[in-house]
Amino acid sequence: MAKKKFAKDSATIMTEMVLPNDTNTLNNLMGGRLMHWMDVVAAIAAQKHSNRIVVTASADSISFKQPIALGNVVTLAAQVTRAFNSSMEVHIEVTAEDIPANKKTVTHRAFFTFVAVDQNGKPIEVPEVVPETKEEIELYEGALRRRQLRLVLAKRMKPEDAVELKSIFNLDIPQ
Amino acid sequence: MAKKKFAKDSATIMTEMVLPNDTNTLNNLMGGRLMHWMDVVAAIAAQKHSNRIVVTASADSISFKQPIALGNVVTLAAQVTRAFNSSMEVHIEVTAEDIPANKKTVTHRAFFTFVAVDQNGKPIEVPEVVPETKEEIELYEGALRRRQLRLVLAKRMKPEDAVELKSIFNLDIPQ
Amino acid sequence: MAKKKFAKDSATIMTEMVLPNDTNTLNNLMGGRLMHWMDVVAAIAAQKHSNRIVVTASADSISFKQPIALGNVVTLAAQVTRAFNSSMEVHIEVTAEDIPANKKTVTHRAFFTFVAVDQNGKPIEVPEVVPETKEEIELYEGALRRRQLRLVLAKRMKPEDAVELKSIFNLDIPQ
Amino acid sequence: MAKKKFAKDSATIMTEMVLPNDTNTLNNLMGGRLMHWMDVVAAIAAQKHSNRIVVTASADSISFKQPIALGNVVTLAAQVTRAFNSSMEVHIEVTAEDIPANKKTVTHRAFFTFVAVDQNGKPIEVPEVVPETKEEIELYEGALRRRQLRLVLAKRMKPEDAVELKSIFNLDIPQ
Amino acid sequence: MAKKKFAKDSATIMTEMVLPNDTNTLNNLMGGRLMHWMDVVAAIAAQKHSNRIVVTASADSISFKQPIALGNVVTLAAQVTRAFNSSMEVHIEVTAEDIPANKKTVTHRAFFTFVAVDQNGKPIEVPEVVPETKEEIELYEGALRRRQLRLVLAKRMKPEDAVELKSIFNLDIPQ
Amino acid sequence: MAKKKFAKDSATIMTEMVLPNDTNTLNNLMGGRLMHWMDVVAAIAAQKHSNRIVVTASADSISFKQPIALGNVVTLAAQVTRAFNSSMEVHIEVTAEDIPANKKTVTHRAFFTFVAVDQNGKPIEVPEVVPETKEEIELYEGALRRRQLRLVLAKRMKPEDAVELKSIFNLDIPQ
Repeated sequence: MAKKKFAKDSATIMTEMVLPNDTNTLNNLMGGRLMHWMDVVAAIAAQKHSNRIVVTASADSISFKQPIALGNVVTLAAQVTRAFNSSMEVHIEVTAEDIPANKKTVTHRAFFTFVAVDQNGKPIEVPEVVPETKEEIELYEGALRRRQLRLVLAKRMKPEDAVELKSIFNLDIPQ
Repeated sequence: MAKKKFAKDSATIMTEMVLPNDTNTLNNLMGGRLMHWMDVVAAIAAQKHSNRIVVTASADSISFKQPIALGNVVTLAAQVTRAFNSSMEVHIEVTAEDIPANKKTVTHRAFFTFVAVDQNGKPIEVPEVVPETKEEIELYEGALRRRQLRLVLAKRMKPEDAVELKSIFNLDIPQ
Repeated sequence: MAKKKFAKDSATIMTEMVLPNDTNTLNNLMGGRLMHWMDVVAAIAAQKHSNRIVVTASADSISFKQPIALGNVVTLAAQVTRAFNSSMEVHIEVTAEDIPANKKTVTHRAFFTFVAVDQNGKPIEVPEVVPETKEEIELYEGALRRRQLRLVLAKRMKPEDAVELKSIFNLDIPQ
Repeated sequence: MAKKKFAKDSATIMTEMVLPNDTNTLNNLMGGRLMHWMDVVAAIAAQKHSNRIVVTASADSISFKQPIALGNVVTLAAQVTRAFNSSMEVHIEVTAEDIPANKKTVTHRAFFTFVAVDQNGKPIEVPEVVPETKEEIELYEGALRRRQLRLVLAKRMKPEDAVELKSIFNLDIPQ
Repeated sequence: MAKKKFAKDSATIMTEMVLPNDTNTLNNLMGGRLMHWMDVVAAIAAQKHSNRIVVTASADSISFKQPIALGNVVTLAAQVTRAFNSSMEVHIEVTAEDIPANKKTVTHRAFFTFVAVDQNGKPIEVPEVVPETKEEIELYEGALRRRQLRLVLAKRMKPEDAVELKSIFNLDIPQ
Repeated sequence: MAKKKFAKDSATIMTEMVLPNDTNTLNNLMGGRLMHWMDVVAAIAAQKHSNRIVVTASADSISFKQPIALGNVVTLAAQVTRAFNSSMEVHIEVTAEDIPANKKTVTHRAFFTFVAVDQNGKPIEVPEVVPETKEEIELYEGALRRRQLRLVLAKRMKPEDAVELKSIFNLDIPQ
């Protein structure tokens, strides 16, 4: 895997308007619709990094603290943080805007992972990620801990082997 | 909160056929579409338990190991496992069937939490859950540990207070 | 056709929430959307019975007496009642729930028929249905009369040959 | 009810292209999607006749003999045949075209009934229908028989009172 | 290209109801949804004229002066005005009806052009258009001027060669 | 209208994947779907500039020379070019990517105009646009000519008053 790509090369921005069918009885965006949009924007970022077909491997836990109202404009910004052989972690930041009220808030952050595959669905190696900015470097470095947590939670890694995961309590978890 | 309800009273089953627009280039169901369906079926289960409007509070991490193909029938079975004041944990089991091939597999298990709210969006207490079957009792008992993990990951509980979470490594995590 | 299958083996449950785009000016579910859902759930039941691709052959007359409101949860329960060579009759029961109001009503019953086909669209024999419960047996026995009515209405059977259809007036018609 | 309107004043034409998500595994239009379109076009015809909000009251039995393929253009022509106080019977004729192959076939005929209602959902009288062409007159005259069949099937009329329904076997049923 | 076809042979009518998801914050139909419908109805008209697969070549400028409200019935009538080798100009007239208020207005007129292609996407000649009515003849004659304007705007024709386009200011432009 | 805003403050990026239902028989994106997306992204840009509800006023002529294939990722970048009292011109640039093939092309450029309105739909003044980059300045300057062409084509300005439109043939028209 000689090839390397900058983190920013995978940057993908998606903008959606919250329409009536996307909302619950309180006229707020349903969580499931937002997760659907997260998956789409993150998959495109992973495609851009790998120039491959990608399939969703996992979604980390997501907390829905901030309601997003009908008519709001939702911007989802996704970028690959780090690659591990054939898998890529993608960070997604969701911003909701009530434009007439001139209010704009970062409402959600999430991490999804994807696997690059060939036409038969076999995993295939992807380029390494080269982080440049301070935020990219932090995301890159946290990716290893988050990966070990994923593996431990999925019972595919023994806790004692999760060296980076010294303390689950210092994880860089989306708020 | 005098009222109690059986876990099974919230049981909700949803069936979907995987259509072309739900699939990726490999003709498999997109992860985001599945999460959307999970959210809908789980929200209905939480509504049934609480007889209230509910809003998604969180989705635990989900692993997508098994692809689900175009034309498959997807059955999502959701049931409330346990209530905590105004919040409810819902367990979702996803089964995919290739009916002409007579193949049926449990492909995913997931946990979502919901908060019951009044018309102004204020949290409101819900009935306690009474588990009956062996599986319901296991899910009920595991709910406390999963809740502590959620709070710790969200940095809303200090690790040393997570009594039930003695070992993250014995958690009942969906495979 | 040696193979037989229990009626209950085809049982299929579908749950839908009534969203804004599904409703008319009075904020009630449009009849056409409900028929669409009936067709999908019944087709899946017929697939489960036959393990074949199925195509809709007919929908019996449907009466829409009960409006279903925006925000209601609609549960459609379908089960094959009886098979005739390559065709299957499916019974669908629709229940609407206003969950916050704790009101739940059976709003519609309907009968659809499907034909099992091979990859070229040629009809192909399906297993016989074995009814077990009292309701399944009644539906099984009524199927012959309903079939003769269908054939007479479609001018594919002469009235004098409709032995079972002695009196149209004792038909087991959905209310 | 002094007002009268010509049958043709309610004529409504709807054109749809069969898209991938509308089709089953054999790439043919699903029956439920077609019934949904029938309901929409017929409701608009009933609105045009009554200048009122209308709700679907019933769909007569429909037979799906002719498959309609992916990519076909489907034309649905609806017209009110006759009014009874607040209810209207609508006739729908479905034509499918494979335009590149220059093939055009009438594939389905169906009858739906609608009730005109005020803003509170109360039934409200509608104008009488004045049929003009030979086909309109035939549809107008057959409407009484079809109505009695509907009432008898719904057990809302005793067979002995169904004077017009002398013989179910001469009914004008869609082929 | 010996074959000729009457303009009216391509006449296509599409009817749509304005649903919640089609509207903006003022509950009026979004312009983009209307353009989408225009493209579909015009493409079908072009298919009918050419009996070929067609692809959109251009949409002339469209002015949105009249809002169309939620619940309105929108009728789009399309007809080929003139053919130029493999391309066809289609005229679309949009009528919006508030049926309960008994109000009906022509809200938009637009011109789209399409190219007929074979299975490999290569342009292929289409029949000439024979206009019959006064309106069809006017549209036929104006088509040449509109075509020259399109070519000049696209910088594919030099102004001095646009003989028919003597004065841009006498163009037959949709109001 | 003392307030001024930079052109870049309205920049909006939307990303879409071409799904089966968006495509024609040749598996290419339908023109109408693309115009729908253009309208949405441009409306959001106009909202960001004006912090108001906006309604589509016009779409300039669009030429569809480049097909966009199923599975491609489509990026639409919109930015307000110039404001005139209550109206805003928005420039949209469409890029299509075949990511696995590593091919990326600007396929379309278009201009839409929007009017900012208050809650009653009355036009309301918007801030002036301050262009900064060379491209923004060119778009700002060309906006006057394009506006005069729009007014002349809509027969709302006499040709002799279209001072800026000295020669239609030097217009900055999207290719």
